[in-house]
Amino acid sequence: MAARYTIGIDIGGTNIEGGVCDEQGVLRRQRAIKTEVEHGFEHTFQRMVRLVDDLLQDAGLTKTDVLAIGVGAPGPLSHERGVIYTAPNLPGWRDIPLQAKLSEATGLPVTLENDANAAAFGEFTAGAARDVRDMVMLTLGTGIGGGIVLNGLLWRGRFDSAAEIGHMVIVPGGRACPCGQRGCLERYGSANAVIERLIEAVQAGESCALASRLAAGEKLDARDVLRAAADGDRRAARIWDETCYYLALAAVNMQHVLNPELVVLAGGLAKAGERLLTPVRAHFEEQRWKIAPDTPEIVLATCGTDAGMIGAAALARAAQAGR
Amino acid sequence: MAARYTIGIDIGGTNIEGGVCDEQGVLRRQRAIKTEVEHGFEHTFQRMVRLVDDLLQDAGLTKTDVLAIGVGAPGPLSHERGVIYTAPNLPGWRDIPLQAKLSEATGLPVTLENDANAAAFGEFTAGAARDVRDMVMLTLGTGIGGGIVLNGLLWRGRFDSAAEIGHMVIVPGGRACPCGQRGCLERYGSANAVIERLIEAVQAGESCALASRLAAGEKLDARDVLRAAADGDRRAARIWDETCYYLALAAVNMQHVLNPELVVLAGGLAKAGERLLTPVRAHFEEQRWKIAPDTPEIVLATCGTDAGMIGAAALARAAQAGR
Repeated sequence: MAARYTIGIDIGGTNIEGGVCDEQGVLRRQRAIKTEVEHGFEHTFQRMVRLVDDLLQDAGLTKTDVLAIGVGAPGPLSHERGVIYTAPNLPGWRDIPLQAKLSEATGLPVTLENDANAAAFGEFTAGAARDVRDMVMLTLGTGIGGGIVLNGLLWRGRFDSAAEIGHMVIVPGGRACPCGQRGCLERYGSANAVIERLIEAVQAGESCALASRLAAGEKLDARDVLRAAADGDRRAARIWDETCYYLALAAVNMQHVLNPELVVLAGGLAKAGERLLTPVRAHFEEQRWKIAPDTPEIVLATCGTDAGMIGAAALARAAQAGR
Repeated sequence: MAARYTIGIDIGGTNIEGGVCDEQGVLRRQRAIKTEVEHGFEHTFQRMVRLVDDLLQDAGLTKTDVLAIGVGAPGPLSHERGVIYTAPNLPGWRDIPLQAKLSEATGLPVTLENDANAAAFGEFTAGAARDVRDMVMLTLGTGIGGGIVLNGLLWRGRFDSAAEIGHMVIVPGGRACPCGQRGCLERYGSANAVIERLIEAVQAGESCALASRLAAGEKLDARDVLRAAADGDRRAARIWDETCYYLALAAVNMQHVLNPELVVLAGGLAKAGERLLTPVRAHFEEQRWKIAPDTPEIVLATCGTDAGMIGAAALARAAQAGR
């Protein structure tokens, strides 16, 4: 029987998610393991190899049923060379030829992709963007990752670093970003940016329901700000709305540069659901061109944390098809 | 003999440029006529049909030697439908099915494309970007037009309005744009933006060598500002440098979104040559990521006003090949 299945693996700093996908890209079996980064790369790598075996066993398959393995990982990495250069969440991983190593250990073809690209391709394959040909995804977490699919193909750019939309400069000379630039989108639209602005506002003496919790040394996150806003705190509401405004501007810019069919919001901040989507859409509607009928729809991702492995598996299939 | 040639036509508000291109996309014959918009569409259209005949005669060809005609025109227009909806520079042109009309009049297949896209494809075919697969072009005139080529294909977007890079929001809440948005790139990086800021500076009472000429009602353009800057006027130098700074930010954003091999600067402002390129490159170098080797080169266009017809001809050929 021909090899019909693909395996997708999504490597995170805490967990590694693995899944078996069928020809249609549908996730049939899945498993998660701890990354255990503290024991170094080789330890994690051996766990990953075992994860592949366990997934096959769960699914009642053998390696001959599998076309290829796709791996999504944090970067910077090179898809072309199959190498992870370095990864802030995976201390000690440096210049890891993961594609070659995993291929050797499993006897299967392996495709390596950055995690934001893989997640975008997952939403394109089986999620919010499954019915369109073009999409831009923004993954709103501690930073902002991006993924671009054009005419059904992932756009990686000439040097493998397209779709770094979080580092689009949105405010010239604005907030400093660890990347070395100023005014990057992720300094205005990420979960971290929400908290940073809250802390700044409180430090500047502005009244806010969360001030006492901050003063008590509590570690707050974007959910706390959203909750305070819902409870009527004006400062928190303003910070949340500003965040949505900048994300809407990012969508306006994607409209003008790429004019995709869909802009998908994913990641931790997207868990806010309609409380994110409604104001982002409202700001977009206010900002966007009225002179052309060229509006991408803005929607929420639907695959959650499965997006990375689904996308990695689908990209492995695409690679085998020469795309 | 097989039809090997293509004809490219670039419609402007003042002139219409026409050219015959060979299989390699090289311009072999060219002619320009006045658009004479004041006499209405039908008049101009008949002149365009005659231009095609004259070009064939110049080149010693007949229609059987011609594969197709490509037309670049100001928009908004629909490439897919072959219709010019309206065009600020072509008063009275409204919902013109130019593709069908010109095809009927000449008996040849016709492809319609917006002029900025056509010019970008011209530089890709025979100009500054002829050796790369991906490029973004910014045409810096009264506004800023854009064109994007990815993997050798023009990227038009889902609704035919990709590459409107001049309307990327670069300053949130910034200068009002006639398009209805605020803070569009073309309000900071176009030839018009140079003059607007000069006038504002002078009106605000800032000293500038050009103040007296403005006061005398002289109509100045970006060249005057550049010349004053070269002659040591600090206000003019600052306006010019700011313009280059914003164009560099646009290049940074193109790097992060599309990561192309090349960013090409074209149009009236690009006639400044090194006096544009050097400061844009310097600002780009200062702004851009140092953490990844993903730098697109920034270069000047080389086809000048021929780019539009060369690109239109090449796009007509691509359309016949089903691309």
